[in-house]
Amino acid sequence: MVKMKKHWQRFVKYYYENEKLGLSLDISRMNFADDFMVSLEPRLQQAFLEMNALEAGALANPDEQRRVGHYWLRRPELAPDEDIAAGISATIDRITQFAETISLKYTRFVLVGIGGSALGPMLVTEALPGGRGGLQPYFIDNTDPDGIDRVLAEISPYLTETLVLVASKSGDTPETKNGMQEVQAAFRRQNLDFTQQAIAITTPGSRLDQLAEEAGWLARFPLWDWVGGRTSVTSAVGLLPAALQGVEIGAFLQGAADCDEETRKTEAAANPAALLALMWYYATGGKGQKDMVILPYKDALQYLARYLQQLIMESLGKEKDRDGREARQGISVYGNKGSSDQHAYVQQLLDGVNNFFVTFVEVQGEARQEPLYLQDNITSGDYLQAFLLGTREALSANGRESVTVILRRLDAYTLGVLIALFERAVGLYASLVNVNAYNQPGVEKGKKGAGLMIGLMEKLFIYLKNSPGQSFTVQELAAALGCPEQEESLFKIMEYLNVNGRIRKNTGSLTERRYSL
Amino acid sequence: MVKMKKHWQRFVKYYYENEKLGLSLDISRMNFADDFMVSLEPRLQQAFLEMNALEAGALANPDEQRRVGHYWLRRPELAPDEDIAAGISATIDRITQFAETISLKYTRFVLVGIGGSALGPMLVTEALPGGRGGLQPYFIDNTDPDGIDRVLAEISPYLTETLVLVASKSGDTPETKNGMQEVQAAFRRQNLDFTQQAIAITTPGSRLDQLAEEAGWLARFPLWDWVGGRTSVTSAVGLLPAALQGVEIGAFLQGAADCDEETRKTEAAANPAALLALMWYYATGGKGQKDMVILPYKDALQYLARYLQQLIMESLGKEKDRDGREARQGISVYGNKGSSDQHAYVQQLLDGVNNFFVTFVEVQGEARQEPLYLQDNITSGDYLQAFLLGTREALSANGRESVTVILRRLDAYTLGVLIALFERAVGLYASLVNVNAYNQPGVEKGKKGAGLMIGLMEKLFIYLKNSPGQSFTVQELAAALGCPEQEESLFKIMEYLNVNGRIRKNTGSLTERRYSL
Repeated sequence: MVKMKKHWQRFVKYYYENEKLGLSLDISRMNFADDFMVSLEPRLQQAFLEMNALEAGALANPDEQRRVGHYWLRRPELAPDEDIAAGISATIDRITQFAETISLKYTRFVLVGIGGSALGPMLVTEALPGGRGGLQPYFIDNTDPDGIDRVLAEISPYLTETLVLVASKSGDTPETKNGMQEVQAAFRRQNLDFTQQAIAITTPGSRLDQLAEEAGWLARFPLWDWVGGRTSVTSAVGLLPAALQGVEIGAFLQGAADCDEETRKTEAAANPAALLALMWYYATGGKGQKDMVILPYKDALQYLARYLQQLIMESLGKEKDRDGREARQGISVYGNKGSSDQHAYVQQLLDGVNNFFVTFVEVQGEARQEPLYLQDNITSGDYLQAFLLGTREALSANGRESVTVILRRLDAYTLGVLIALFERAVGLYASLVNVNAYNQPGVEKGKKGAGLMIGLMEKLFIYLKNSPGQSFTVQELAAALGCPEQEESLFKIMEYLNVNGRIRKNTGSLTERRYSL
Repeated sequence: MVKMKKHWQRFVKYYYENEKLGLSLDISRMNFADDFMVSLEPRLQQAFLEMNALEAGALANPDEQRRVGHYWLRRPELAPDEDIAAGISATIDRITQFAETISLKYTRFVLVGIGGSALGPMLVTEALPGGRGGLQPYFIDNTDPDGIDRVLAEISPYLTETLVLVASKSGDTPETKNGMQEVQAAFRRQNLDFTQQAIAITTPGSRLDQLAEEAGWLARFPLWDWVGGRTSVTSAVGLLPAALQGVEIGAFLQGAADCDEETRKTEAAANPAALLALMWYYATGGKGQKDMVILPYKDALQYLARYLQQLIMESLGKEKDRDGREARQGISVYGNKGSSDQHAYVQQLLDGVNNFFVTFVEVQGEARQEPLYLQDNITSGDYLQAFLLGTREALSANGRESVTVILRRLDAYTLGVLIALFERAVGLYASLVNVNAYNQPGVEKGKKGAGLMIGLMEKLFIYLKNSPGQSFTVQELAAALGCPEQEESLFKIMEYLNVNGRIRKNTGSLTERRYSL
């Protein structure tokens, strides 16, 4: 009991509450010592200085020689030059007007995008209910033909009422390009003019931008090189889908702007992003030693964990620190929603390997207006709350730590707050552990590998078409195609093509099996 | 190049291929030494013996004094007594007939369930396309009133055509009970008779079973105490929703049965479940030292990672081993789908903290019949394949390990194979690390915590209603309610109730703030 009293004292001491933001933060069940924050104070102050410089337009992403401007998107007057500020404001105005007008003519939109161009829009459109007359959202976020066919089957009866948003910062993302081509083919099958319903969201001058301009697409909205994909949700990438759905994007931007303002404070106790970053450092030793489990107790936030997984892991998961030293940084992030996940893996969290800390996300206010009492005084929502509190207590009693992020309600404003909170926590944490949060060199390796494989398939088909009636082993093909080291991938490619009826094979061991057209 | 050749040799040496199952397994990019398998052979043989005993009806879950019979569900003649066998067969027949008849009358079903009673059905209905005349599935898998309202809004116009499946093994799961009551209320609002469209899936004699019997529900299907929630997908829990959707449940069961048969083989190289279990042991040191990242390259498998997260973490995440010694076991599991996730967190996997191994899931055969060529000879699916192979290579080149599970195609049969494969791998691995894979003592702690909180709310409302016009601090309430150690939870409860207009408060510091009805 004395111990519990300590809990309450610690809770009161560390509880962060901000009525303007509609946000609270409870870090009391992280067992850091009283002097922990003091010990990190110099580095935290350095992180604030770096964040100031970033917001003022420094080349905060030196590897790519880029500025990092997602904070300007919700407060254009912060931008380091007037052209940028004017471009941001004009784009927000254009999106608002465009959405208002176009909503009269369409009932649905399908967004073709992946990674940073999909998870933000998915989070926002799922979290916030659409307004009156809003369009219904669909997503093509992969290059799986069967997945694409499922979405196309849903929208095909309504294709004349469906806008197509193609979102790719570089304008060259293969999955997105494929998705676009697949949707174009669906339009052709119905003899519809794709260009009249197509909208590009991309960097001005990119290949996609040029294509859209030349073909006369319905509209083009800009992404800028100083906006990273994983922090693009307050750019046209997130705003246009939200506006089309009927979300008040002004409130969304205001929430993010207000959170930005609060999280510029240089006193840790008054800055929830700093508190989060410090907790991440405490929990993981600044080295990713523990996983971050994200548990929002609200179904509408079902994409939050995936969104934060991208934001945090892609930002922090780096081989080298900013001084070029080997660092192998990152924090692994996973989770879905409470209390559903309690029936899935909280068994392990409570009893098993203690390799994580939990971030509960609580939404206090329900959207439901009239409570439905299931027993005296008690509602479904009361149980949701009880499961959150009960799990927090049980974890704590078993020596498992947790943070709780609390939103008064879930609406456009507080979603802006929540996103801005984690964006800045990531930026501050990256400074604490000295990594560049804004590049993604590893992604290129994966893309390069995929490019090699596509090249291999192209060569393969040319070779086989030039060798009619002949069959080959994998080793023979590897040698003939000039890639003797690729037998293994070639084998997998041949087997895949065979199952799909595009290549014939005979039976035999892996090294003796022969393939032909 | 010499090194690459070694890759091919190793690949050929360890590749598992089974045409009957439509399954292959590639463990060649796990860097275990040649003698690793030999070193674990005695424990593996012991695991097979334990699995034999389990399948023969031993009390394999001694803590709960229960047998573990999910393998009997797809081969009833294996069951240790005739009553069980007859019950299984009769239930499968009843489900088939019931689904055929009822499909003529209904167009939708909503399944109310959570954890083991939701994730299996969600996996199956999402992975497999519905047959002609199949019902469209909806799920209520939480006690979030806003999430429930979203589902109810979708089905409300069709409530007369919607079956309600209530699935709870114990029949007492609070979230499921709440969801059921919410659906009942929706029926009442439309003056419809809930009981005529309601189906219970529960243990015979449970509270839910009694309720359904007394109220004369449309149907009841049994779950048995020897089926764990997380392995209930081949029981009525998984079969009924699948059958209603038009899935061939016979093929699904056959796939599972055939995989069971293959994975009874006691030669590791011929047993893909044993190979998986060995790889898990190798990767995690038998102590959960690395996370398992599940990356299915097929949109339809989007719930696989969540399903496996439950199956693996709830089975393995245990405090004590079977001898009662502190063990703190488990393997953390997360993932969504490829190649989408490559744009989210593969940056960290490639470059960052090396605290994981990847399980790729490849589906070779596409559902799409006619390939759509986006460029010469190349389809969207070829890119999907290329991304998988490219990422596997890039990970391997960076010293990151991966397993690849390969399905010829995705259909009812192979989904049965895939599920049975992981079920048995979990069972074998649990033997290797000496934990009981079939209990979940931790879940009770979370439930107990939640029960305490609900009790607190009940007492709170009684107290406040008996104290009209009075206001209290959290400390005063805690003392008055006889729970002086619960100020912190009480504070959170009061704030939540206040935001929802059910409790008033004045402003003030946390310790001075006063609350009243």
